[in-house]
Amino acid sequence: MEKYRLYFNENQSKYLQLAVHIKELIDENQVNDGEKLPSIRELAEFLMVNKVTVINAYKKLHQEGYAQQKMGSGTFAKKKEVGRSFRKDYSDTFKKLTSGQLKNVIDFTGETTSSNFFPVRDLKTVLNDVLDRDGAEALIYQHVLGYEKLRKTINNKFWEGRTDIEDILIVSGAQQGIDIASKALINVNDNVIIEKPTYGGALSVFKWRRANIFEVPLESDGVNLIELEKILKKNKVKCFYLMSYFQNPTGISYSYEKKKEILRLAKEYDFYIIEDDYLSELVYDENIKYTTFKNIDINDRVIYIKSFSKIFLPGIRIGYLITPKRFREAFQNSKVNTDISTSSLMQRALEMYIDKDYWIGHIDFLNKEYKIRYNYMKCLLEEKLKEFVSFSYPGGGLHFFLKINEKLDVSSLQLFYILKERNILITPGIMFFKNSKEGERYFRIGFSQTNCDKIEEGINSIYEILKERENKL
Amino acid sequence: MEKYRLYFNENQSKYLQLAVHIKELIDENQVNDGEKLPSIRELAEFLMVNKVTVINAYKKLHQEGYAQQKMGSGTFAKKKEVGRSFRKDYSDTFKKLTSGQLKNVIDFTGETTSSNFFPVRDLKTVLNDVLDRDGAEALIYQHVLGYEKLRKTINNKFWEGRTDIEDILIVSGAQQGIDIASKALINVNDNVIIEKPTYGGALSVFKWRRANIFEVPLESDGVNLIELEKILKKNKVKCFYLMSYFQNPTGISYSYEKKKEILRLAKEYDFYIIEDDYLSELVYDENIKYTTFKNIDINDRVIYIKSFSKIFLPGIRIGYLITPKRFREAFQNSKVNTDISTSSLMQRALEMYIDKDYWIGHIDFLNKEYKIRYNYMKCLLEEKLKEFVSFSYPGGGLHFFLKINEKLDVSSLQLFYILKERNILITPGIMFFKNSKEGERYFRIGFSQTNCDKIEEGINSIYEILKERENKL
Repeated sequence: MEKYRLYFNENQSKYLQLAVHIKELIDENQVNDGEKLPSIRELAEFLMVNKVTVINAYKKLHQEGYAQQKMGSGTFAKKKEVGRSFRKDYSDTFKKLTSGQLKNVIDFTGETTSSNFFPVRDLKTVLNDVLDRDGAEALIYQHVLGYEKLRKTINNKFWEGRTDIEDILIVSGAQQGIDIASKALINVNDNVIIEKPTYGGALSVFKWRRANIFEVPLESDGVNLIELEKILKKNKVKCFYLMSYFQNPTGISYSYEKKKEILRLAKEYDFYIIEDDYLSELVYDENIKYTTFKNIDINDRVIYIKSFSKIFLPGIRIGYLITPKRFREAFQNSKVNTDISTSSLMQRALEMYIDKDYWIGHIDFLNKEYKIRYNYMKCLLEEKLKEFVSFSYPGGGLHFFLKINEKLDVSSLQLFYILKERNILITPGIMFFKNSKEGERYFRIGFSQTNCDKIEEGINSIYEILKERENKL
Repeated sequence: MEKYRLYFNENQSKYLQLAVHIKELIDENQVNDGEKLPSIRELAEFLMVNKVTVINAYKKLHQEGYAQQKMGSGTFAKKKEVGRSFRKDYSDTFKKLTSGQLKNVIDFTGETTSSNFFPVRDLKTVLNDVLDRDGAEALIYQHVLGYEKLRKTINNKFWEGRTDIEDILIVSGAQQGIDIASKALINVNDNVIIEKPTYGGALSVFKWRRANIFEVPLESDGVNLIELEKILKKNKVKCFYLMSYFQNPTGISYSYEKKKEILRLAKEYDFYIIEDDYLSELVYDENIKYTTFKNIDINDRVIYIKSFSKIFLPGIRIGYLITPKRFREAFQNSKVNTDISTSSLMQRALEMYIDKDYWIGHIDFLNKEYKIRYNYMKCLLEEKLKEFVSFSYPGGGLHFFLKINEKLDVSSLQLFYILKERNILITPGIMFFKNSKEGERYFRIGFSQTNCDKIEEGINSIYEILKERENKL
């Protein structure tokens, strides 16, 4: 009880002081996660305050996620997630960035193509053409699967007509695709496998769905199969979420052999693969051949997710799923429950954009531009940072994933804050691990929002900071 | 065991025949919901078939939702929901309707304004103005809350500046609003109250969230408060989903007194109100005063949901939420997990549309048009159908809710199928009740997609059918 002792000052209300005091106890592990706090009566008597003071303090702790009230059995301490305050800082930084409050930033965090490359004029053309052609028709609800002509065009242009358009479901971006898949497939306490590390947005969805999450470490050509099978042998797994190309954050692509083997395991252990086909349009290394899991999936075990937002226009929020036949109805219901259907005007505009081959021209253009940046960043990383960090070569996509050498006494979180002072933004690795702590030595830097000059300036800064740390050793 | 006896024919694989047989047993209640099916070995021996046949039959039953496999304890029968085959027919009908396969239909099912009234030209103007003004800026990700200027305009035009724009969250339509609220507030087995009957799309969301759902019957001025408090006294309730104006399907609006009382109960019993403000722009009865729960909510207990799609353009998929301050973060996280953010171009277009008062002009126009249809339908219902059905007068919105008199031997499902043969579409009441059976005597007819001629033709048909039924008695 003694640790709750507190001498109140007179400038602030007592309940606030008490709440702050208990928060500190929790943050400093003097009160453990899940530990019962003293009863209201007890604590009020001990501190010689009114009961209402304790009630209000507990209420405040509860509101801020530091305590849990269980009916009839009291109040319990709740440890805040590691990195929680960082996540807030990170999201606040982006709020400032998108609202234009931050100027002259070197933004290495971007996950989508640069707005400098947006085909605004072409989009305007197709929007007007669609409204002229379809009139009010362009603005009614579509069928839940989405605009039929768009599904046909996707099938013809991207799948050589081999897909059943009734299996294609238009969604409002890849994030919604993951959410819809999760609702359709996963129940509370179902087992889900993810790559380690993985995309934080997917991790959140599975956590919110209250699934049991297993991580399998990534190697240079995909996940470690021995670890994967170990999990499969011990647990009935519902699905495995993976990114087949230029994985976020590692940049890894799966080898053909690993794809085949994982598909075989899917059949043997009766699980499904959620394939997030991420940025696979951007390939700079000619040795990389494009074959998705879905392409070689003979047992209808793959839920394929594709975003048009990342590569094309983030603001249009369109992507699509290809679902196994047996889940067709479940996915449609999941979509209807989520938001009925995706913006019909945008679907029509996108259809025309792809059909008239604006799309392919745009992708060619992006490949040329980003290949230059990719090579530029690659050279600078080799030249400047090789002694401080290790990394591999994705050969495509929009970023590199770096690991700070063990000998340097700096975490990627610290690096984030130091760089932020210099108006440089990176993404610390803790965003990509189920257990945030494991990501402390990693960070991701992307070149989508930075031209070559900025890439150079930013990497020079990182070099200076790490060099300084080395000298301190 | 004897009921499982089956004589196989040679034209079809045995496992399929066995699956069909067991499905019939379940449908006909010879096998009850939750009843354990015979073990694989037992049934294989009894039917003198290979074990694989039984395994495959059970797998098929499982896939089709007729059986549940519980690890280590066998396979159990699962009764399909009442009206399930109807739901499929209903959704197939709409698929045909939206794809243009059904012609000359009298569509009484519409929930959104008619495409004849869509302001296509004005929308085109604002879209082009936005793209000219903002360029690529219009197509980047927004902050998760949505385009700041749109939130400001909503606050100024609809809330007299009284709302904090940080509490406004732009969503992709009201359905997404309900989904996001449900993810942010409701855990598995939490208690949720709904109106009886209620909007089927909300019911589905809460079911998918695996909440415990309590229904409170509606009276002419809102739910029955005695029944409401009975539930609150016995159960810790998390939230109450309601529609304050022209409820879907009943058309009921809440009295000021009931609103006040429900807000008081929310504070007393510590629950939240999810207010779906549905079509409240369309008011034909001057006695109806517009005051939302949110407007008179002094304890920050209301989650307010507004759709722009229903009244404006279904295809644009935009709406907004106003969240209580204490849930701000939870709602933002829920939105990010769901689809990151809503189409930015459409948000900007809508902002300009509202700001330049196209919006208010459009609403005035719709009010005039729909008031004519409302009164026309009202007169015809009184004139033709009063002896067969009972109903009340919403005084606004886009539909009437009718109850077939007990003396007539026809359910609204039967009526649906008979009318469908005549190319007339209605919405049977079973869509709006947790227990579908309770809706069998109700149906909803709306006038959003039908001009006065069609209203007359349709109601005449309903009259003929019911008259014929009466004569048969």
